Amino acid sequence: MTELSPTGRSTVHRGKKRAGTDRTDLHSILDEGVICHLGMQVDGSPRVLPTAFARLGETLYLHGSTGARSLREGIEEAEVCASVTLLDGIVYSRSAFHHSANYRSAVIHGRPREVSAPEEKWQALRAVTEHLAPGSWEHARQPDRRELAATAVLALSLDEASVKIRTGGPGDDEEDIAAGDAWAGVLPLHSSWGEPEPSPDLADGFPVPEHVRARQ
Amino acid sequence: MTELSPTGRSTVHRGKKRAGTDRTDLHSILDEGVICHLGMQVDGSPRVLPTAFARLGETLYLHGSTGARSLREGIEEAEVCASVTLLDGIVYSRSAFHHSANYRSAVIHGRPREVSAPEEKWQALRAVTEHLAPGSWEHARQPDRRELAATAVLALSLDEASVKIRTGGPGDDEEDIAAGDAWAGVLPLHSSWGEPEPSPDLADGFPVPEHVRARQ
Repeated sequence: MTELSPTGRSTVHRGKKRAGTDRTDLHSILDEGVICHLGMQVDGSPRVLPTAFARLGETLYLHGSTGARSLREGIEEAEVCASVTLLDGIVYSRSAFHHSANYRSAVIHGRPREVSAPEEKWQALRAVTEHLAPGSWEHARQPDRRELAATAVLALSLDEASVKIRTGGPGDDEEDIAAGDAWAGVLPLHSSWGEPEPSPDLADGFPVPEHVRARQ
Repeated sequence: MTELSPTGRSTVHRGKKRAGTDRTDLHSILDEGVICHLGMQVDGSPRVLPTAFARLGETLYLHGSTGARSLREGIEEAEVCASVTLLDGIVYSRSAFHHSANYRSAVIHGRPREVSAPEEKWQALRAVTEHLAPGSWEHARQPDRRELAATAVLALSLDEASVKIRTGGPGDDEEDIAAGDAWAGVLPLHSSWGEPEPSPDLADGFPVPEHVRARQ
């Protein structure tokens, strides 16, 4: 399955030339994004909150405390929307009107279910931990019974998803190109990991492990 | 006015110690974030889309094409939620359970109004352009009448806003600290602008202007 299967609400209406149809694009955006923005309807108004997540196959796992209002209410099989955006650069054009951004965006619609089966919950928590901090699941202490009970995990199917990607330079009008008055191009935006900062309560000389030191 | 004025939905329920109450925090998050995630209810389900924006005083201006479904429907004085998240680093703790992220998050609730007054629309478009590409408004060609008509701008008051900020190291359990088995600390995440990439249709030797070259 490499084709996205858009429904009405997951069909890209604007900028169809930017709509992706390949499931590998969807997966790579979800795997590269560190957090998602989760939208839900609460008491009659939309709420959008940054949320930790991970993808396993065709399922997005969303993480939260069982006490969190967003998760409690999201658990009730209500419609949600998860959005992951990677901003790749700013597009400078000869006109203010054609300024734009290069980005890769994934939007998923659906009704999440709460993950209660112990094995699936364990694998989902492992995936969310590894998504946030690759290598940590094996290095750190894994959850005990109390911690498992205090963690809620939602599963959202990737069945109804859309991808939008913009790449390349500006789309200037011919007259503006001919005028030659202004610079045009792309200023790329990069993300990078900095120097690890050991916790003050860590023993002196505790080495920074490879999975932290070498994170790309 | 430096205090946020939380209502029920803009009060931070989880992690109150992370709730910001200072309006300068709100402003700095909005000014540093490049895009927001705009949530709205469409045909009975939430939709969250990455959106260009800018702050002027206590108003958030949201940008879109007049043909965009999200803007058309958002224009109807419906409730929306705009979320801006700056991810500052990953918090590695001794237990998988206490892994976390350092971030600054602003969430704004309200009913946006469409900006129709010419002077306000002009200033809003200027602000959105300058937010995306500082220096571009004066350098590039400014919008003509047709372009102005083809652009929709929404104004969202910052009256109902919440800020959540997490900084610092992990909050590990005493037993895990005593065990001394795992590394703990923060891996910072940085954003940086890369080398400007001139458009292929730019005249040879056209200099990269200072506002692009020196962007921080």
